[in-house]
Amino acid sequence: MTTLPPALLEPLVRTALAEDLGGAGDLTTTAIIPAGHRSTFRVVARQAGVVSGVESARLAWQLLDAEVRVDVARGEGARVEPGDVVAEVAGPTRALLTGERVALNLLGHLSGVATATAGLVAAVAHTNTRIACTRKTTPGLRALEKAAVRAGGGVNHRFGLYDAVLIKDNHVAVAGSLPEAIRRARANVGHLVSIEFEVDTLAQLAAVLAEPDLVAACRVVLLDNMGPDVLREAVAMVDGRLVTEASGRVTAQTAPGIAAAGVDLISAGWITHSAPVLDLGLDA
Amino acid sequence: MTTLPPALLEPLVRTALAEDLGGAGDLTTTAIIPAGHRSTFRVVARQAGVVSGVESARLAWQLLDAEVRVDVARGEGARVEPGDVVAEVAGPTRALLTGERVALNLLGHLSGVATATAGLVAAVAHTNTRIACTRKTTPGLRALEKAAVRAGGGVNHRFGLYDAVLIKDNHVAVAGSLPEAIRRARANVGHLVSIEFEVDTLAQLAAVLAEPDLVAACRVVLLDNMGPDVLREAVAMVDGRLVTEASGRVTAQTAPGIAAAGVDLISAGWITHSAPVLDLGLDA
Amino acid sequence: MTTLPPALLEPLVRTALAEDLGGAGDLTTTAIIPAGHRSTFRVVARQAGVVSGVESARLAWQLLDAEVRVDVARGEGARVEPGDVVAEVAGPTRALLTGERVALNLLGHLSGVATATAGLVAAVAHTNTRIACTRKTTPGLRALEKAAVRAGGGVNHRFGLYDAVLIKDNHVAVAGSLPEAIRRARANVGHLVSIEFEVDTLAQLAAVLAEPDLVAACRVVLLDNMGPDVLREAVAMVDGRLVTEASGRVTAQTAPGIAAAGVDLISAGWITHSAPVLDLGLDA
Amino acid sequence: MTTLPPALLEPLVRTALAEDLGGAGDLTTTAIIPAGHRSTFRVVARQAGVVSGVESARLAWQLLDAEVRVDVARGEGARVEPGDVVAEVAGPTRALLTGERVALNLLGHLSGVATATAGLVAAVAHTNTRIACTRKTTPGLRALEKAAVRAGGGVNHRFGLYDAVLIKDNHVAVAGSLPEAIRRARANVGHLVSIEFEVDTLAQLAAVLAEPDLVAACRVVLLDNMGPDVLREAVAMVDGRLVTEASGRVTAQTAPGIAAAGVDLISAGWITHSAPVLDLGLDA
Amino acid sequence: MTTLPPALLEPLVRTALAEDLGGAGDLTTTAIIPAGHRSTFRVVARQAGVVSGVESARLAWQLLDAEVRVDVARGEGARVEPGDVVAEVAGPTRALLTGERVALNLLGHLSGVATATAGLVAAVAHTNTRIACTRKTTPGLRALEKAAVRAGGGVNHRFGLYDAVLIKDNHVAVAGSLPEAIRRARANVGHLVSIEFEVDTLAQLAAVLAEPDLVAACRVVLLDNMGPDVLREAVAMVDGRLVTEASGRVTAQTAPGIAAAGVDLISAGWITHSAPVLDLGLDA
Amino acid sequence: MTTLPPALLEPLVRTALAEDLGGAGDLTTTAIIPAGHRSTFRVVARQAGVVSGVESARLAWQLLDAEVRVDVARGEGARVEPGDVVAEVAGPTRALLTGERVALNLLGHLSGVATATAGLVAAVAHTNTRIACTRKTTPGLRALEKAAVRAGGGVNHRFGLYDAVLIKDNHVAVAGSLPEAIRRARANVGHLVSIEFEVDTLAQLAAVLAEPDLVAACRVVLLDNMGPDVLREAVAMVDGRLVTEASGRVTAQTAPGIAAAGVDLISAGWITHSAPVLDLGLDA
Repeated sequence: MTTLPPALLEPLVRTALAEDLGGAGDLTTTAIIPAGHRSTFRVVARQAGVVSGVESARLAWQLLDAEVRVDVARGEGARVEPGDVVAEVAGPTRALLTGERVALNLLGHLSGVATATAGLVAAVAHTNTRIACTRKTTPGLRALEKAAVRAGGGVNHRFGLYDAVLIKDNHVAVAGSLPEAIRRARANVGHLVSIEFEVDTLAQLAAVLAEPDLVAACRVVLLDNMGPDVLREAVAMVDGRLVTEASGRVTAQTAPGIAAAGVDLISAGWITHSAPVLDLGLDA
Repeated sequence: MTTLPPALLEPLVRTALAEDLGGAGDLTTTAIIPAGHRSTFRVVARQAGVVSGVESARLAWQLLDAEVRVDVARGEGARVEPGDVVAEVAGPTRALLTGERVALNLLGHLSGVATATAGLVAAVAHTNTRIACTRKTTPGLRALEKAAVRAGGGVNHRFGLYDAVLIKDNHVAVAGSLPEAIRRARANVGHLVSIEFEVDTLAQLAAVLAEPDLVAACRVVLLDNMGPDVLREAVAMVDGRLVTEASGRVTAQTAPGIAAAGVDLISAGWITHSAPVLDLGLDA
Repeated sequence: MTTLPPALLEPLVRTALAEDLGGAGDLTTTAIIPAGHRSTFRVVARQAGVVSGVESARLAWQLLDAEVRVDVARGEGARVEPGDVVAEVAGPTRALLTGERVALNLLGHLSGVATATAGLVAAVAHTNTRIACTRKTTPGLRALEKAAVRAGGGVNHRFGLYDAVLIKDNHVAVAGSLPEAIRRARANVGHLVSIEFEVDTLAQLAAVLAEPDLVAACRVVLLDNMGPDVLREAVAMVDGRLVTEASGRVTAQTAPGIAAAGVDLISAGWITHSAPVLDLGLDA
Repeated sequence: MTTLPPALLEPLVRTALAEDLGGAGDLTTTAIIPAGHRSTFRVVARQAGVVSGVESARLAWQLLDAEVRVDVARGEGARVEPGDVVAEVAGPTRALLTGERVALNLLGHLSGVATATAGLVAAVAHTNTRIACTRKTTPGLRALEKAAVRAGGGVNHRFGLYDAVLIKDNHVAVAGSLPEAIRRARANVGHLVSIEFEVDTLAQLAAVLAEPDLVAACRVVLLDNMGPDVLREAVAMVDGRLVTEASGRVTAQTAPGIAAAGVDLISAGWITHSAPVLDLGLDA
Repeated sequence: MTTLPPALLEPLVRTALAEDLGGAGDLTTTAIIPAGHRSTFRVVARQAGVVSGVESARLAWQLLDAEVRVDVARGEGARVEPGDVVAEVAGPTRALLTGERVALNLLGHLSGVATATAGLVAAVAHTNTRIACTRKTTPGLRALEKAAVRAGGGVNHRFGLYDAVLIKDNHVAVAGSLPEAIRRARANVGHLVSIEFEVDTLAQLAAVLAEPDLVAACRVVLLDNMGPDVLREAVAMVDGRLVTEASGRVTAQTAPGIAAAGVDLISAGWITHSAPVLDLGLDA
Repeated sequence: MTTLPPALLEPLVRTALAEDLGGAGDLTTTAIIPAGHRSTFRVVARQAGVVSGVESARLAWQLLDAEVRVDVARGEGARVEPGDVVAEVAGPTRALLTGERVALNLLGHLSGVATATAGLVAAVAHTNTRIACTRKTTPGLRALEKAAVRAGGGVNHRFGLYDAVLIKDNHVAVAGSLPEAIRRARANVGHLVSIEFEVDTLAQLAAVLAEPDLVAACRVVLLDNMGPDVLREAVAMVDGRLVTEASGRVTAQTAPGIAAAGVDLISAGWITHSAPVLDLGLDA
């Protein structure tokens, strides 16, 4: 489910390895473990959750030593319970121990994102509403966190500033009005670029819906920080002419109520920026 | 309090900018905001917490446009309450809006780490125990997260595998015994490298303490996952001959009890790997 | 009109400078020109065309010596006639001469792309049809060539494999049918991702148009290698439900005929991959 | 005939892949093609020409997936006719389709340079004159374009500012005279560095030829923009004491006349900066 | 004994290869040696010494051509006499000859460092004193030179500014006094960071020894530029409470006298910054 | 006299800084020196020698803090006596002390190369023979060491495998004979590439001199490891038709004798690979 080849993941994983090994390498392992010693360890879940990042973990170990073999038991998107084996790693003990932290840091963080996403997805599973991420990602990890969101059953919002338009209050303030901002966007971007605009009130929404040309120019409306009742009214006003996305104070508790308003998508920043890691260990 | 010059922070910040701008740049801002337009915004805290990462945020904006001026009101390590202004940014509106997310992603994440650290520090403030981080950091962000821990009042554990020895169960298993592992470490590392070893039981600890040469060779003992009573006994056994560090299930609730056992340090992985972001916004 | 800041253009320009200077630097200039000597030169068009790439040229000179001043007379998107001054450059003669070739290689190539684009744009200026580029760009130069297309009055197609779906014959062959390929795409990509599909025949087009769900899922149809009459029929069949794009054997001669068929866009690979440079010189 | 190992070509090819895949990867292929699907395609020439760049294309596919097998039927420097198979590529369909554009962009561009070169080489094949390239290359692609010129039967001029001296009018203007510029160059560069100087008139040439020391110091004279008759006289004046190189308005039409003047070399910038791509496709 | 995996050595070796191959590659070998030709060469010592850097040399050849086989006869830390074979390399002749200089430059330099170290180690072998390096290393080569010191039987001092504190006169001057500088250091660095301080006189030493808290805060004292008699007195004053390190004018001649004073360590900058290469050749 | 702009020196200097600062930065200075403290220091020679590398040292300090001012008193190529001030550096004390070692490592190493070169240059100053370096340079530092050789009064040999041909015994062995190797080289390299060949005996030399075409094809003969008498005979045989270069066992003692044989150049590897550093210090 990861869509980037190892060659393009390498820079991040090399950075993480260099960050941990410095110039002196793994002092402890080099001092204590004989060079020829070999072991087999298992990456074991200590919590229930959803796995993401196994390929990055594999790369961490194999960049240290090409002889390390990583057999994945539960790959991208798999659910795990405490005690489940995610992967078995075998090879030179030095490489296994030296790579442990970098591999688990990647795997734990990304599985944490996938697990947080899956939690929201489960909360609205009885509806047609989908869960989406945002651009509030950890610097340097966006592509992997976006993949983790997909592993958790969510969908990706735009990847960056470059692949879709999202008009927010600061743009509107300069343009003078939301309709004017939409007009400028449509006039200046390519035919494949989707446009989304954010509204905080029904009045703002009504101003756009009143002009069919503006509606046709856009694909998604972001209904920000509206309560369920207002959301329901907004969805009714839109009446299928735009994709509807709700955001603001989204938790597993609030999500069902938001979904019940009939929005197509709920987006949440915290599933990427504040998801706790999934606890995983390396067992002999 | 950050100890790296901008020249060495640049690679990370450039990566984050490239990740967000891609090849097409900020489609929305370019389409809507005139090139010559200038603005002043304020970075405002929406939650109480501790600030870290302002210099990285500054770099994000200034790499986009050298004309952006960032005046810091509350710098590295400052406490903020909701509504407090962290910094004022002024310059070309395009650069301010294009850099907003990268700057806030850095600032929010690092302030989150500082805030989490500060929470634990406060919980043990009435004792002599200090709060330390671990190597469980976000790949690519270790130096900044370690600085954020310091901003939050914590102390840094080793930075990587390269600057101290930490002997764990997997090393002991291969060496045959903890004393043998310590002997190998002391024989093979430089005179400035500190050695720490982990124990889970008082018996393991006693085996080391029984040999004065081993004690002299080491600087710190990591008491892992021991309850307060066992910890207290361990501290008594060590009797000042080693720095004592406790880890395992550390929260603001459990920390006072652990500190009361008399340990010198409490280390916690979650303050770097699972700290939620500090909520910050860019206001006109 | 360039949407990337100098900080993100730097890697390419540094590569180009390193490629030309090697380890020994500019042997000729160092041997002949005294270190303190200063000059003013003008970048002069030797052909009519459209300018693109001035900011990259500026960067080439200023990375060599921050004292070089580049005053742009005709910037991004400006038309020039033979003899027109594009920019005046002043500063240390060594830097001016050492940077000449890298600066002009960038400026000439990108202005060539802009000029080729402008030629097609002019050919259909009396219609509502716009000219678009493709992904057939020069490796390493895509962002700059896409900007050059905009400078020439064209619009950008997708930037890469990552920002839109384009279903081609090889995808259809594996999926079994075009409708099935569209269904798979819609099911698997985010809500902001636009879908385009390619057809060679009216029958293929009809098969999609027959299913309103497929039409609603897509944004653009690429009509490949159809003659004007077939194109006209295709446009009639689509009847405004999709953006229509024509490609195949597009030249300034054929473009008016294609545009007359009523397509929204004409895309051409050669404006990026085979545009001759715009001839420019550095005059004393 | 490529003289750089894959390890040194990698940065360019990785840049090209990253440019096309972004963070989201190949949306279309990932959505439509099953992960396990395998195919065999053929790279087929759609035009007559000369091949260059097959090793770069191979690298593009193999960096995506090491399982891709590329069997080259017509390698570096081979002539192809429309319909000829250049290479057969087999392996995971996703990698084959995802790498198609990067591989063909490299191969088409470099084969275009080789083909343009071969056209000029053919035009003077009945003479002893050879065809050379210049430093007017595409930024980032110089080494590959220089190899493509060799593949097309041409010879390489200097690679950069660092491996030979070429004295032009701007250098002469500062030095005061061409003889003085030559003297400064000879005095200041190493014993293995060849010196070439440019002249526009026979008078300039005569001034150098009058001083045997200057002639001995140089290896090549560049006769710029001279008509065949003047060229012939220049060649006679040089009388074998220097290598003679002609440049300016070189096409397949003008080249035979220039060669007939007896020059050793004809150099042309357009074979690298303005060569159209060789049209190639990927057929099932 | 090298503690960095090939993946982290690659950047340096690639830089060295790129430095030697440029864009044109190995002109001589490409022109003279047929592509298919294969050879076996031996890396032979022309001087007695200690080997270091074989893995870097291996990487140089294998990055050029993965088919090159390097069989190491005398690896990291092995002693060699003139005529001894260090390694046998076999494979495509072009790669063997093209990589020769980079491989031997790395191997010769690092073996030179190892050999210089071994010379000092031998000079004090009858004592308990060990030989240490400093941070006076060649820019870009620190990790490899530190490994070479270990290969030569020496021990590593701190790797950089980041892994230990070393208080020198310039720090003392700002702090006001050595005791104050030590106090500031202890208060501000982590619990695993060792502190060393430099003294030039016995009075400075006495000032620290007078305060048990300062002694307990530190691990090492650097006795700089003291004669053997003064050193002996310093060692007596320290009386085992600190590790003692002597530096200044250390040669194979002076080292025994310094060691006889009873210091634990002697550190010398010249073993990394001024060690002559070990002469090695590539023989058919 | 350095021919590379700071922008191209940056990667090396950044690597050196990163190598010394790691992720934690300068622990000592950060702990002891207040952030606002400013100082002025002088870089002082402790030995007589020739300066090279001041611009690299400047860059080291200024990349740490743009406020550092470096006033050069004795620049590239200047002679210094013990106690002479090379440069005065002023600015934030933290940056000055943190950058000290990187700056002095660069400056000391490169000045060492310049000084070693100057020693040989002085030894043959009464003759017309010049001193040249080789490709036996420190990996990563070639461009700077080549500049240091020029600063010391020497001349540069080829920079790499890419800018001249040098035919050695291993090439001859594969080609079958030295004349055949020369013929292959001439046939396969560009018109600006100079060819040099190595001979060990007068017989080898005579075989080339017997064929005027071979002599005309070459520029330099390398007379390897010949005693003064044989050298004198070789020079007589060549009789001005080639540049003559002697190598092998070159020291300040042997150089005058070699020069007396009348060779144009003497090349020595040790001036780059084994030159001891020039001792320099940073004084308050």
